Amino acid sequence: MNDYTPKPEHKFTFGLWTVGNRGRDPFGDFVRPPVTPIQIVKKLSSLGAYGVNLHDNDLVPIDASPSERDSIVKEFKQALSDYNMHFVMGTTNLFFDPLFKDGAFTSNHPQVRAFTLQKCMQAIDLAAEMGAETYVFWGGREGTETDAGKDPIEALKWFRDGINFLIHYVKDQGYPLKFAFEPKPNEPRGDIYLPTVGSMLAFIETLDDPAMCGVNPEVAHENMAGLNFVHAVAQAIERGKLFHIDLNGQKFSRYDQDFRFGAEDIKGAFFLVKMLEESGYGGPRHFDAHAYRTEDEEGVWEFAKGCMRTYLILREKANRFHQDEEIQGILEQIHAWDTDLQARTSYSKENADWLRAHAFDLDALRNYGYQYEKLDQLTTELLLGIR
Amino acid sequence: MNDYTPKPEHKFTFGLWTVGNRGRDPFGDFVRPPVTPIQIVKKLSSLGAYGVNLHDNDLVPIDASPSERDSIVKEFKQALSDYNMHFVMGTTNLFFDPLFKDGAFTSNHPQVRAFTLQKCMQAIDLAAEMGAETYVFWGGREGTETDAGKDPIEALKWFRDGINFLIHYVKDQGYPLKFAFEPKPNEPRGDIYLPTVGSMLAFIETLDDPAMCGVNPEVAHENMAGLNFVHAVAQAIERGKLFHIDLNGQKFSRYDQDFRFGAEDIKGAFFLVKMLEESGYGGPRHFDAHAYRTEDEEGVWEFAKGCMRTYLILREKANRFHQDEEIQGILEQIHAWDTDLQARTSYSKENADWLRAHAFDLDALRNYGYQYEKLDQLTTELLLGIR
Amino acid sequence: MNDYTPKPEHKFTFGLWTVGNRGRDPFGDFVRPPVTPIQIVKKLSSLGAYGVNLHDNDLVPIDASPSERDSIVKEFKQALSDYNMHFVMGTTNLFFDPLFKDGAFTSNHPQVRAFTLQKCMQAIDLAAEMGAETYVFWGGREGTETDAGKDPIEALKWFRDGINFLIHYVKDQGYPLKFAFEPKPNEPRGDIYLPTVGSMLAFIETLDDPAMCGVNPEVAHENMAGLNFVHAVAQAIERGKLFHIDLNGQKFSRYDQDFRFGAEDIKGAFFLVKMLEESGYGGPRHFDAHAYRTEDEEGVWEFAKGCMRTYLILREKANRFHQDEEIQGILEQIHAWDTDLQARTSYSKENADWLRAHAFDLDALRNYGYQYEKLDQLTTELLLGIR
Amino acid sequence: MNDYTPKPEHKFTFGLWTVGNRGRDPFGDFVRPPVTPIQIVKKLSSLGAYGVNLHDNDLVPIDASPSERDSIVKEFKQALSDYNMHFVMGTTNLFFDPLFKDGAFTSNHPQVRAFTLQKCMQAIDLAAEMGAETYVFWGGREGTETDAGKDPIEALKWFRDGINFLIHYVKDQGYPLKFAFEPKPNEPRGDIYLPTVGSMLAFIETLDDPAMCGVNPEVAHENMAGLNFVHAVAQAIERGKLFHIDLNGQKFSRYDQDFRFGAEDIKGAFFLVKMLEESGYGGPRHFDAHAYRTEDEEGVWEFAKGCMRTYLILREKANRFHQDEEIQGILEQIHAWDTDLQARTSYSKENADWLRAHAFDLDALRNYGYQYEKLDQLTTELLLGIR
Repeated sequence: MNDYTPKPEHKFTFGLWTVGNRGRDPFGDFVRPPVTPIQIVKKLSSLGAYGVNLHDNDLVPIDASPSERDSIVKEFKQALSDYNMHFVMGTTNLFFDPLFKDGAFTSNHPQVRAFTLQKCMQAIDLAAEMGAETYVFWGGREGTETDAGKDPIEALKWFRDGINFLIHYVKDQGYPLKFAFEPKPNEPRGDIYLPTVGSMLAFIETLDDPAMCGVNPEVAHENMAGLNFVHAVAQAIERGKLFHIDLNGQKFSRYDQDFRFGAEDIKGAFFLVKMLEESGYGGPRHFDAHAYRTEDEEGVWEFAKGCMRTYLILREKANRFHQDEEIQGILEQIHAWDTDLQARTSYSKENADWLRAHAFDLDALRNYGYQYEKLDQLTTELLLGIR
Repeated sequence: MNDYTPKPEHKFTFGLWTVGNRGRDPFGDFVRPPVTPIQIVKKLSSLGAYGVNLHDNDLVPIDASPSERDSIVKEFKQALSDYNMHFVMGTTNLFFDPLFKDGAFTSNHPQVRAFTLQKCMQAIDLAAEMGAETYVFWGGREGTETDAGKDPIEALKWFRDGINFLIHYVKDQGYPLKFAFEPKPNEPRGDIYLPTVGSMLAFIETLDDPAMCGVNPEVAHENMAGLNFVHAVAQAIERGKLFHIDLNGQKFSRYDQDFRFGAEDIKGAFFLVKMLEESGYGGPRHFDAHAYRTEDEEGVWEFAKGCMRTYLILREKANRFHQDEEIQGILEQIHAWDTDLQARTSYSKENADWLRAHAFDLDALRNYGYQYEKLDQLTTELLLGIR
Repeated sequence: MNDYTPKPEHKFTFGLWTVGNRGRDPFGDFVRPPVTPIQIVKKLSSLGAYGVNLHDNDLVPIDASPSERDSIVKEFKQALSDYNMHFVMGTTNLFFDPLFKDGAFTSNHPQVRAFTLQKCMQAIDLAAEMGAETYVFWGGREGTETDAGKDPIEALKWFRDGINFLIHYVKDQGYPLKFAFEPKPNEPRGDIYLPTVGSMLAFIETLDDPAMCGVNPEVAHENMAGLNFVHAVAQAIERGKLFHIDLNGQKFSRYDQDFRFGAEDIKGAFFLVKMLEESGYGGPRHFDAHAYRTEDEEGVWEFAKGCMRTYLILREKANRFHQDEEIQGILEQIHAWDTDLQARTSYSKENADWLRAHAFDLDALRNYGYQYEKLDQLTTELLLGIR
Repeated sequence: MNDYTPKPEHKFTFGLWTVGNRGRDPFGDFVRPPVTPIQIVKKLSSLGAYGVNLHDNDLVPIDASPSERDSIVKEFKQALSDYNMHFVMGTTNLFFDPLFKDGAFTSNHPQVRAFTLQKCMQAIDLAAEMGAETYVFWGGREGTETDAGKDPIEALKWFRDGINFLIHYVKDQGYPLKFAFEPKPNEPRGDIYLPTVGSMLAFIETLDDPAMCGVNPEVAHENMAGLNFVHAVAQAIERGKLFHIDLNGQKFSRYDQDFRFGAEDIKGAFFLVKMLEESGYGGPRHFDAHAYRTEDEEGVWEFAKGCMRTYLILREKANRFHQDEEIQGILEQIHAWDTDLQARTSYSKENADWLRAHAFDLDALRNYGYQYEKLDQLTTELLLGIR
């Protein structure tokens, strides 16, 4: 009945860099041979994915000539078409090349900041040409190891100036692109500016076109700071700012692990899927993760399948949560509404006077039990397949 | 020459709950006898502080009659006047009473949410009567241990509705109060909503009067999430939203420690003082901390003196940083400006074309050294008193 | 078939302080009325528990007279007998009273260290009288907020001296008690000495009778330091040192949460139950946790039931893991043994020479895939009830 | 007077991999050109270092022929001699090559475990030939991302078997080498076995020759788990097990940062230097760190100089701490000894009886103030150069 088979309608996407990850880490070399973008498109299509995402240099080498670039792009577009795969999100690699060692938009070096604009315009052109809807900015190098050398207030201004330039560029070109900003607290820099979903949402309000800008939250990034990812995404959804999402798994307060979705914190993953499905979020379910370094290529595809299957399993659990009479009964009880009182909580002088004078039964409120232990246990048992 | 003696002009303030902290913790009982608010005012005045802050129930017991309340307030105002101490910031205790166990503005119980408005109005009246400039909201219980029972999107709406009610109340009363929101990631709740300075800044933009609202960041709270506090405060300053600040010390990724300012992360404390002094922040330097539980009353006052002295020592180090020719020489070098290039980074079609066509010397940028090791070492030696 | 009903044979135990927890925390007051030890015994018995544990002062007030003490103990033993409940583990409260503010065995004050011995002897007598098998030492206050005032090397010597005294006391009295040491990294002290299971195992080797001493690891305590609890317990089991265990739930790098077992990190809880069951550990499954502060008394019993049910569900999953042919097939493959080679890995000069000369097929090892993604996904699906 | 100039007598050492680090990280490429081992030796010598350490493959490429190997070694020994530099510690690279992706001693693959012995024997021969005193084992890949595929109890046995083999090999060869084990909690593996100094100390007790084995603690590694490094080293010193030490800087609960010594947590660095100097530790002060990725080669040498200078500055602060009359006065007060009472705390039946009967003045102990706030503030001011 529930076969949990991924299909394009589920809108599962992967970055080329995710299933293409070759397992190099700070202490070790590559463990897997390269896989070409076209091989990735073909294989992901066969697994039921909806599309792929890419950084400019995932597809086009940084030193490609214009004609090389065009031929690569053409061939790739053909492959997307052949395998019925969508290109959904583009982004610029502003972190791999040594010149970005002090950041891109916020490098202390003015030429780096200017070159960043050049590289972004080219990458945006590429994304637009290929039909992307969303353009992601991950400022992996925008930060410091010591605050002795850079003023964080000035750096924020630089960041804003750079993004505003690109906002105007996109509008001027008439590209139908939206921008999505992806925060991360640290690694590879000691500290990264605008480290959380909240700080990005606040930053967006200061841009020249806030409506065009939203966020691309990533499970691992909020979890690296030990923050509740569901709450962070909720704030974005409530503001209409969830433009894209990066799904993966991460242990709290660790190096960036990018594990398979659902590999850590099953309950948190469940609440996330439940919220995404309930909120009407229609964007891609993007897995920004990679296979353990212990794996060969077969392991990589197991990893990709696992991400999608776990999402579908949790989606089905979310349905079941809504159909579970005991759970819904408790929820109804603890959300019981007091309509008269509620009417008093919109401000008017009269309501304020009424509220000030109202005698609450404080002891009843003190003794009230919220039944969260039971609810959480029922949820746990639902997740464990016992109900 | 530098005697580091605190004076009222330094605007050092303490909450009554800080030096009045009696050392109870989750595993142990009180270790110190109570100190009355008036004793605190007298003693802090003699130590050179500028003023005190309080929660409603730090001064007035939750069950005081109106006449008891008035007499307590009168006596306390007299003490402030006698000892030339200012009352700067007020706040509501929305966390101690059992009825707030599921939150105040975001409790699932509608009567708790309504009672919260009543209690806040009374506490705001008290703060206004006593001449406070700033009203702080710390939502200590606004959160969850499990997301099974409360919808974080709905909770944000409740939070906003409650604050909007109070915004209108304050305006209607003609109180010259500003609101400052204080985020915290967790403890005493499993997760607290709006956990970081960034998320609060984003939330503020959605309120009925954003201009009236700012933040009250606390060192310990950002550090509990392992976040760079200087960067968080920088974002607030850059938006004109630093209305108040809570200074203390905290080890990363731990329970809320509220140690003496400067007791942890001396370098971070230095960059913070430097930024506060340079930014023109004119508000109170509030210490939201308490003495180790090993201390008797004498230890409490040593704690209070230590907070202020360390701030003044670090302020003097910040001056020295500006006068240090070697440090300033490096900063000038690495901030060297390229005026022509900079002019190209404001968007215009022409500038975009120019930038796209510009040939950057990428290898020069790759090989450039930012001298941050030297700068950080010089800063460290300056802090250690070697230069 | 699987009804997951707790029975005494499952050896589930609770501390009186767990279900008796009244919900006080650093920011809030009690939320629940007291429950007497005898009510706890009765209720836990009805829920299928095996026994209870206690600190001296959970049962006998610190200022009880000898006759009061005797009458309390008598009544309690009668209740245990009436409800067929076992008293399994005793411990001393060396943290609540203000006199322990700088520690007990490691307080800088010599009288506190001496009084600690007195209090422990009395508490050990109580535990022995009541038939405890295991005596736990949790050194909650053994630590510092600053290393300026106490020498950690000297403190370790004091700790050892104190424990050695009690080892000899127990032997001299002929009590059949074993000691189990419970590490914790921090909270309520800034840092606690011997913070991890590993450091306790090392400390034990230096005591006068290591064979009498083992550990009492707690999920939350290792997880507060972000450490893999299963690995910590494995080291204890491998040394024959797992004398007792504290089960609960905790988010990494947070304040001490003591959530319901299984409320966090379901996969980690599964591997723990699996290892306990496979290793032949025969001791109590002790839940050192407490209900969320949002709960009334009914919520407390839901909490207690949830701890036990989740353990039993995970135990059944562990069985299923062993019966799952696909999982076992992969495990067999990746554990395939090379008997000839293995024989060479015991040291002899000949084997060393052989190994030095042996030509390994390094490329085959480099390309080998360990199938951990698939294994972990299958485990996840097994946990989610899909297989 | 204090010129803080490093000299060989200070025993400062660096790994070839530290100043030779080229700045590659998980998200970025090399930023610095290679520096040869001989250039490193020459430069470090000129900066006042005592010696260098190396992994086998830092000096000899993994695929070098025997004659290449011999010629490289010869040339390197000549350079050491020419520049009066010592070779102090050797170790095996068991993490870079893809074949170690599932660990070395604890890989599930029996051929990897056997090859590990071969590689270690060769690397030990190299270290012995060059006159190393200490051989370090850092098991960077000994761990898991999921416990589904490897039994942590079995893995510990494999680890022990491998080390025991090498213990016997060293003895058989008559090498005067000691083994030092270096723990790390995670990264590059999800979790690493034997993650803390404590767990290594416990493991050592189970080896065939514990006396030959000690630990090599690293600041960053304990701090990644948020643990107090001074306490960890204290436990090692107290057991005579501090054979080597890795000095650097690290923010808690982060990716492995390996910053310049003193770049983070100045107070913690001070207590560490103070303890090393006071304890009579005579081994090398090894800096296992690297320059920020923003640096060119000049920045690398600034980094190296900074490590040594900060150590010397803190050493001088430790002297000053001992000469500071106010600090020493407080320490004397709070360590005041009660000789009669102390005599009662060695176990004898008589002492036990005496202690049980002794009436302590509990209220005096409850009210006692430990003066740690003052002590810590004085220490802070001493560090800041104010006293």
